[in-house]
Amino acid sequence: MNTENGQGLQLWEIVHRQQVVDAAPWLQLWRETVRLPDGRLVSDYYRLEQPDYVVVFALTAADQVIGIWHYKHGPRNINLGLPAGYVMPDETPLAAAQRELLEETGYQADIWRHLGSFTVDGNRGCGQAHIYLAHGLRAAAEPGPDDLEEIQVEFIGLHSLTRYLHEGKVATLGAAAAIALGLNACARFLKGQI
Amino acid sequence: MNTENGQGLQLWEIVHRQQVVDAAPWLQLWRETVRLPDGRLVSDYYRLEQPDYVVVFALTAADQVIGIWHYKHGPRNINLGLPAGYVMPDETPLAAAQRELLEETGYQADIWRHLGSFTVDGNRGCGQAHIYLAHGLRAAAEPGPDDLEEIQVEFIGLHSLTRYLHEGKVATLGAAAAIALGLNACARFLKGQI
Repeated sequence: MNTENGQGLQLWEIVHRQQVVDAAPWLQLWRETVRLPDGRLVSDYYRLEQPDYVVVFALTAADQVIGIWHYKHGPRNINLGLPAGYVMPDETPLAAAQRELLEETGYQADIWRHLGSFTVDGNRGCGQAHIYLAHGLRAAAEPGPDDLEEIQVEFIGLHSLTRYLHEGKVATLGAAAAIALGLNACARFLKGQI
Repeated sequence: MNTENGQGLQLWEIVHRQQVVDAAPWLQLWRETVRLPDGRLVSDYYRLEQPDYVVVFALTAADQVIGIWHYKHGPRNINLGLPAGYVMPDETPLAAAQRELLEETGYQADIWRHLGSFTVDGNRGCGQAHIYLAHGLRAAAEPGPDDLEEIQVEFIGLHSLTRYLHEGKVATLGAAAAIALGLNACARFLKGQI
């Protein structure tokens, strides 16, 4: 048996699933009965379905990143994020990223690079976070977010962004992942590796 | 009004909350009525409470990271993560990180550095992810994870880890954030900045 890269591992089987809450489009909760590879049955494994979302690490020609200060009701404080939002039905993640950047900041970008898509909760699901780097920015419109949240835009140098991250100003996992992935991509970009 | 760093922004007020699902200790779902700063009331803002979890970027003296291959039922595939798990009641995040590293890999670490704690879902809550870098590793026990999952441990060089990340082998947001933050910390560590 080849056990490299997890190749010897087996999937779980979903034996039964029952919807517990339908609060679409925001969330749906399911209770699943799953069969593990060793045959054990687990009868109360919860799954959450939520919309996918995008996060955009938008880098200016002067090596500044477009930060968004906002109140977020998850952490229940005012913190630093990036342009972000839910993917609408029938919208691709890239189109959502382009729309959110334009709505929240007024900028469009010529170069889009996909930094990764990740399931938000390893056990429950909770949709995917699609993370993009945007470069080649140009002002295209007045920003006009129509979300519930008030936001403030700040252009932030890479060193200041790193400091904000380590000072705890970035409160949400999606923003932290996007900032860390974006900073890594910048470092490789500056070294000519991407 | 000072509007730097989001200082002009206001918090939301929770006017009412009602529990929709109590599946403790795994999750609790609440429906809240919140009042926005402009006075609007939103009567169906959902909040999820889930246990906090830890993720450990464990770096050996040979600059290898301890990776964990596992099936995860969130993304429903076999993928690459790091030592991780829920924080138990009455356990500190650091103690949970130390316990999970020992259980899943058999290693203990002399040096622990907190890379950040982040609310998993910016809107719904869903607990916090606490991310640590562990260094100064020594083999201390036979690994014996008692989770539901089968796992395979792989020691991975930093370049291979970066490649796995970009190839999509890392499927969950917590692992991606921890790997990206850990790689950033390594880069600064090697430059003598931390």
